[in-house]
Amino acid sequence: MKYNIVITAGGTSERIDNVRKITNGGTGKLGSIIAEKLMERAGDKVEKIFYICSENAVIPFPERSEGDAPDLIENADRAGDSVDIIEITGTDDLKEKVETVLTENDIHFFIHSMAVSDYSVDYVTTAEALANSVREGQSFYDHIRSFSGGITDDKISSYEDDLIIKLKRTPKIISIIKDISPETFLVGFKLLDGVSEEVLIDTALKLKEKNCCDLVVANDLSHIREGEHRAFIIRSEGQMTAAAGKKDIAEKLIDEMLQG
Amino acid sequence: MKYNIVITAGGTSERIDNVRKITNGGTGKLGSIIAEKLMERAGDKVEKIFYICSENAVIPFPERSEGDAPDLIENADRAGDSVDIIEITGTDDLKEKVETVLTENDIHFFIHSMAVSDYSVDYVTTAEALANSVREGQSFYDHIRSFSGGITDDKISSYEDDLIIKLKRTPKIISIIKDISPETFLVGFKLLDGVSEEVLIDTALKLKEKNCCDLVVANDLSHIREGEHRAFIIRSEGQMTAAAGKKDIAEKLIDEMLQG
Repeated sequence: MKYNIVITAGGTSERIDNVRKITNGGTGKLGSIIAEKLMERAGDKVEKIFYICSENAVIPFPERSEGDAPDLIENADRAGDSVDIIEITGTDDLKEKVETVLTENDIHFFIHSMAVSDYSVDYVTTAEALANSVREGQSFYDHIRSFSGGITDDKISSYEDDLIIKLKRTPKIISIIKDISPETFLVGFKLLDGVSEEVLIDTALKLKEKNCCDLVVANDLSHIREGEHRAFIIRSEGQMTAAAGKKDIAEKLIDEMLQG
Repeated sequence: MKYNIVITAGGTSERIDNVRKITNGGTGKLGSIIAEKLMERAGDKVEKIFYICSENAVIPFPERSEGDAPDLIENADRAGDSVDIIEITGTDDLKEKVETVLTENDIHFFIHSMAVSDYSVDYVTTAEALANSVREGQSFYDHIRSFSGGITDDKISSYEDDLIIKLKRTPKIISIIKDISPETFLVGFKLLDGVSEEVLIDTALKLKEKNCCDLVVANDLSHIREGEHRAFIIRSEGQMTAAAGKKDIAEKLIDEMLQG
């Protein structure tokens, strides 16, 4: 049997207008290394890697150009047939693509390393418009929540005073994966910032339980910033492996996955 | 005499928290082509190009890696000595770097092609916190403007309901250039979305007058999206050149600049 594998990588971005958007720091580096290591170590067992990523994400085996050395070009071509690059922008778009790929294919592994926006834009307005439209007797809180007179320009003017962006929660993509495909081996990722090891592991275990992940990779942004990407690959409360550096994380994650 | 040239390229981004930010679509492609064409056509007259750009912007003469063809590596090395890459993130950071480069050097040309955020984050809060803190008799409008109880976490929780981002205007970088260095030849850029040629040119002329630009490049996002980057290089109301494609825009802009 050959494996179908989904890897999500990079970060979603949410549209404010035609030029402005809210992004998060996902680069796709770790996701692309996992894809490359998987092909290196178990390429003969891989039917297809569906690599779902944002527009600017690092992609595995990038297309090489004419000036490049022949072996680089050959490598990229060979891997290219097994890797489908699927580009997405916002969380809604990601949700649709994930549903499609899980419905149309028998997916054995799902590695969800993408940084997904927790919030998308509900509306954009000005403090003045928001304040002026409160009706007599209505609470501010209700008004902010139900306001519907947002700015709908293609490109918001550069000269507005006191602009306000109201956000709303996005659907949690990780929670739909096992719902659609209970047999898929699911790897979740948890990124926190500047917390203790205990808090990090505890939060990751909660994510794991809530979404029926088989493994969770837990890491801390404060380490990534300092240039040392450390992570815990967690199978259960008592079973976890520490890794340091993106290549080591990828290697050890694949070890754990192939154990099943 | 050899020229010192500043090129700003890419787009600024404004911090929401340690992972989230507001970005705009600036890629740095046009700025990098202008730098490369300048070196190609007038490299012997260039003392230094200060290339001020965002982290993810395309840079001119990118460093080549081992697998690349020898002539590409040589080219990049040769140009590398004349090009200083100066990375910035937000508008405040850009302002500081622009002031420094204009104060410490005699700058002959300033090509301001970077997409600069018009807004940065004033505070982040929830609808509930904002509504609950209005004092008796205070206007909602005044309250939104003066609110100071924003969320200050390194990373905002993923589980807030009705999150609100209040924005404030950023300083206009283009307006400080001639103030600091009146003799610098200044090229401004105006990007609109889906307007008529008349409106585009009229808006560009206003930008030119307001900031004492010597030239303004006016372009429309709707053309860029369709893959045909058209632009007008405007010297005055009656004097303008049309260009199509980033290379053509760069070539014709340099023609106009070297005329003085």
